[in-house]
Amino acid sequence: MTNLKKTYLEQIIHAWQELQHQKPLVQCITNTVASHYTANILLAAGAAPAMIDHPNEAAAFTQASQALLINLGTPTSEQVTAMHLSAQTAQDTQTPWVLDPVGYGAILAWRSEIIRELLNYTPSVIRANAAEMAALAGQHTIQTKGVDSEMSSDFVHPHVTSLWKYSPCLALSGESDYIVCRDLKLTFKVNGGSPLLPRITATGCALGALTAAYCAVASPAIAALTAHVQFAIAGKLAHNQAQTLGSFNTMFLDYLHMMDSNLFHQYADFEIIPDSP
Amino acid sequence: MTNLKKTYLEQIIHAWQELQHQKPLVQCITNTVASHYTANILLAAGAAPAMIDHPNEAAAFTQASQALLINLGTPTSEQVTAMHLSAQTAQDTQTPWVLDPVGYGAILAWRSEIIRELLNYTPSVIRANAAEMAALAGQHTIQTKGVDSEMSSDFVHPHVTSLWKYSPCLALSGESDYIVCRDLKLTFKVNGGSPLLPRITATGCALGALTAAYCAVASPAIAALTAHVQFAIAGKLAHNQAQTLGSFNTMFLDYLHMMDSNLFHQYADFEIIPDSP
Amino acid sequence: MTNLKKTYLEQIIHAWQELQHQKPLVQCITNTVASHYTANILLAAGAAPAMIDHPNEAAAFTQASQALLINLGTPTSEQVTAMHLSAQTAQDTQTPWVLDPVGYGAILAWRSEIIRELLNYTPSVIRANAAEMAALAGQHTIQTKGVDSEMSSDFVHPHVTSLWKYSPCLALSGESDYIVCRDLKLTFKVNGGSPLLPRITATGCALGALTAAYCAVASPAIAALTAHVQFAIAGKLAHNQAQTLGSFNTMFLDYLHMMDSNLFHQYADFEIIPDSP
Repeated sequence: MTNLKKTYLEQIIHAWQELQHQKPLVQCITNTVASHYTANILLAAGAAPAMIDHPNEAAAFTQASQALLINLGTPTSEQVTAMHLSAQTAQDTQTPWVLDPVGYGAILAWRSEIIRELLNYTPSVIRANAAEMAALAGQHTIQTKGVDSEMSSDFVHPHVTSLWKYSPCLALSGESDYIVCRDLKLTFKVNGGSPLLPRITATGCALGALTAAYCAVASPAIAALTAHVQFAIAGKLAHNQAQTLGSFNTMFLDYLHMMDSNLFHQYADFEIIPDSP
Repeated sequence: MTNLKKTYLEQIIHAWQELQHQKPLVQCITNTVASHYTANILLAAGAAPAMIDHPNEAAAFTQASQALLINLGTPTSEQVTAMHLSAQTAQDTQTPWVLDPVGYGAILAWRSEIIRELLNYTPSVIRANAAEMAALAGQHTIQTKGVDSEMSSDFVHPHVTSLWKYSPCLALSGESDYIVCRDLKLTFKVNGGSPLLPRITATGCALGALTAAYCAVASPAIAALTAHVQFAIAGKLAHNQAQTLGSFNTMFLDYLHMMDSNLFHQYADFEIIPDSP
Repeated sequence: MTNLKKTYLEQIIHAWQELQHQKPLVQCITNTVASHYTANILLAAGAAPAMIDHPNEAAAFTQASQALLINLGTPTSEQVTAMHLSAQTAQDTQTPWVLDPVGYGAILAWRSEIIRELLNYTPSVIRANAAEMAALAGQHTIQTKGVDSEMSSDFVHPHVTSLWKYSPCLALSGESDYIVCRDLKLTFKVNGGSPLLPRITATGCALGALTAAYCAVASPAIAALTAHVQFAIAGKLAHNQAQTLGSFNTMFLDYLHMMDSNLFHQYADFEIIPDSP
């Protein structure tokens, strides 16, 4: 292991320890499919979720929170108003926040316009699948299917840096995950996980929420890296024990909960790709 | 096994294979209780769910989808508008769609009126429990309790054919399931499953969504038959291994995911009831 | 075991038996995080849940229900209107109902005002964590974090009796649960459970719903006691078998479902604290 990689592994473990210690309160304005699962993932990982999403109280709650997730999976009109208020508050109070632009693209024009507006509140991290990130970066030649990505993150990750004007950290999920970091001038490639993870709904949504939680205790880049490495490890270990979806999902939650510094040391599998000049 | 039954079993297996191959995109406008579970069931079975339900994008998404589910479990005012727009679009574009009239009956007058309006968009399949289907067919002498059925599908299924003017395929769930097919001039009776299935919330809702998914790759009658047989097999095999609800539910998802042509051959349990003259 | 305790244990078992027999219909106006889990908990315990929450049908459904839960986790504007209508109907028709004032406190001012209005419809039971109950009782010196309590129920329970003017039964969850009963002139302390329960989202919400279900077959005090004892037993037994969150949660549902009078006899762990003079 290179010294640089060792340094990042130590930062991952430190972020995980800080999360256990601080148990940050994470406001999630998210979709009906993901809300229960997301709350359980955050609790398993050690954070304190709260799904406050009404316009009459969203902004006040953002002020009291250590981090914010905004996920566009199934927005209601009330939630959209709350998203604007909370994103504005997060920007004003320097509360870190994560944008998950679920379904961004030509078909879902209404939410896509909302997502473009939300970009102006400078999210700490944009987390999306490869197809959504490509579309958001204006790579319009690429097609996707519904809200799930069939586009390879391997191909997309070098072509999204135009989004750095909105956010310093772009996290693309796929067979491998890529975290494209403006300020560190590098990209992390995270391996591991399981092909079963995309067969469980809302795992991407929950990963966005976990990234937000880590943003409360680390820089956006380290937060995204830690969340993605933790998911990859738990997915890999769960897959070793169960290859069918019901049992795998139970095990995945078990391993997120059982995570410790030994598991990070033993199983963290990521690469550092320096910026091309 | 009769030759006729063999033919239908082959069609079931073909529908299942096509679903694996095509991974149809299924738009679900459904209730908050069922949304997460429904998405997981569709993913386990091989389809691609998306819960797009806002009036500003529902119709455009229906145009991009291979099938649509409309479920009346807990409708919001926004969802009701979306339901009309998506059902109209499905009818106009000949996209197959399934109506699940949850809670239809005298007590829930508001949704019952909405359901009657939705019938005019000619759903490919109406999927309901016996009590809801009886009420929808105007069999008002029968009473039910809340949104769960205590009425026997054995008794109800011959009395619902007045609904054929709205839909060619009526799928009633109960201890045995019945699929009353206008164009094939017969009724399928599907056996198996588990008495634990109605003790898990939203299994009926998810069955409606799976029926919609199969409508993307087969006729309404074969789609409904395949979905109900797959549920019955997975329910039976899960019950053989676990008789308590938490473990049973995990196993049920496992078996939906593990389904293959051998399991269909070995465990499909259905009868063909010809139309009375 | 004292004779008094024996009497209460018999009443617990009787309430559980009546629930199995009557399978009461329980209307739940609850949050998106909890709705699926709550329905599964009620079904596992033997009740019949229905999440009817639209203003156009909430009140009519309350009239047809045996009990009502109102939970303020993630209220929408439509749900708030429905809450008022259903609570009013419950009061008018003497249908028992439970109020779960999730998130009550200074930060969430909007819902807190709604909660204060709902108190006037005289809930049969108020169920909350210690921090919410303390704030509701006007103990403003105590602070909490988000919607989860870090305040000890041991400390709070003697200081909430000002709420008896709204409800005869105050159920506080925590490491030990306390049920502060106006009419019986005593407090039940319920031990057991598992430290993992608060690490699973919506367990408190589901406990409120189960309390409502038991209110259909027993007095508020016995209903609350039975629900809390059943949760404590299932939590304890699940913890004996699994100490990680995914597996624990599966087991917890298994044990709620497997409950019987023997398990109540063997594991019910509660104390009777007489009123101070």
